[in-house]
Amino acid sequence: MTIKVHAALFAPNAARVLACLHEKELNYEFVPVNMISRVPEHKQEPFISLNPFGLVPAFEDGDLKLFESRAINQYIASAYADKGTQLIFDDPKKMAIVGVWMEVEARQYDPPASWLTRELYIKPLLGKVTNKAVVKEQEAQLAKVLDVYESRLAQSKYLCGDTFTLADLNHLPLLDHLMKTRVKAVFDNHPRVSAWAVDILARPAWKKVVAVRSNL
Amino acid sequence: MTIKVHAALFAPNAARVLACLHEKELNYEFVPVNMISRVPEHKQEPFISLNPFGLVPAFEDGDLKLFESRAINQYIASAYADKGTQLIFDDPKKMAIVGVWMEVEARQYDPPASWLTRELYIKPLLGKVTNKAVVKEQEAQLAKVLDVYESRLAQSKYLCGDTFTLADLNHLPLLDHLMKTRVKAVFDNHPRVSAWAVDILARPAWKKVVAVRSNL
Repeated sequence: MTIKVHAALFAPNAARVLACLHEKELNYEFVPVNMISRVPEHKQEPFISLNPFGLVPAFEDGDLKLFESRAINQYIASAYADKGTQLIFDDPKKMAIVGVWMEVEARQYDPPASWLTRELYIKPLLGKVTNKAVVKEQEAQLAKVLDVYESRLAQSKYLCGDTFTLADLNHLPLLDHLMKTRVKAVFDNHPRVSAWAVDILARPAWKKVVAVRSNL
Repeated sequence: MTIKVHAALFAPNAARVLACLHEKELNYEFVPVNMISRVPEHKQEPFISLNPFGLVPAFEDGDLKLFESRAINQYIASAYADKGTQLIFDDPKKMAIVGVWMEVEARQYDPPASWLTRELYIKPLLGKVTNKAVVKEQEAQLAKVLDVYESRLAQSKYLCGDTFTLADLNHLPLLDHLMKTRVKAVFDNHPRVSAWAVDILARPAWKKVVAVRSNL
């Protein structure tokens, strides 16, 4: 069976899936999607047969077709449980904690982190003007979220205990971008969160994703 | 072990967890949280020891403490797999499809459904003025999402195949509210989605949640 990831390499949601594939030491084919042409490829067939919402990434594993990066990652972690890094748990109680912190990433961390990435990383790359009011508001929101993370990481090295899990992994793409912006100062105000960020960004699997992406 | 749900009965995210508990035929203790007092209980101790983000519901099963309604539901469905309605699958490929549509509910359906519930259901209850521009924008957004659901439900009776799963269940609280507003017309424009909504809202477990809630 061939695993295929359809996306543009610069898309954070694609990097999330690639990080998981590299942690699991799985081979995959990257199928580039031109998201910036006049009629972007992800908004038309054949892509929308893979994801009817027209969002990257889309994913294939043999005849299985998936979309939504976090659902794809949960599938990879579960279907290839015996390969590479163990990212989830069989025990329902241990897995429940991973489930909670995956939801926290998606619902608490991702919204301010996405706004800040857009304003401070993507807009400058495209020569567009950053909205300072949005930055101020979203930095304050992110700081509140990281206050909770700081307390959490006083209890254990990673979000769900003493080992790296899918809940940590899902943070990587936006974390990498944000640490290259002024938002790093917000992290620096949270020493345990900063140490966690440095630790997970240094993982060999993530470095491979960064290397793949730098060949853009 | 005693299952406890800490929330206010009117909170949609609490109803999502109650729907799951009733489908699984599990007993639980409902611990009311006064969310509308001058200093709301969910923003202070002891509640924030259960959920540091200060959001309902919080959940206990013996010594396990969880928050985030969708993570709680996945735990219930997994830990009590042999009770009541089967809501998830062991097979990773079948479960992956449930994972995709749970993400679709959380990321595509929930945002416009939450806005519309606030503007058209909650604000009138509180005697506040509905923002018509927000309603127009979010109805258009919801219609686009339901276009995809309409195609999906041409393939199978429920979102993930021929049986009701956690992906369908997670829609219930906001669906119930929206069908009592003008947004019902948006559903009526999508006949398969309408039939699905009528079907899942008629489930005995959901009717029990509505009955519990009507005792407010």
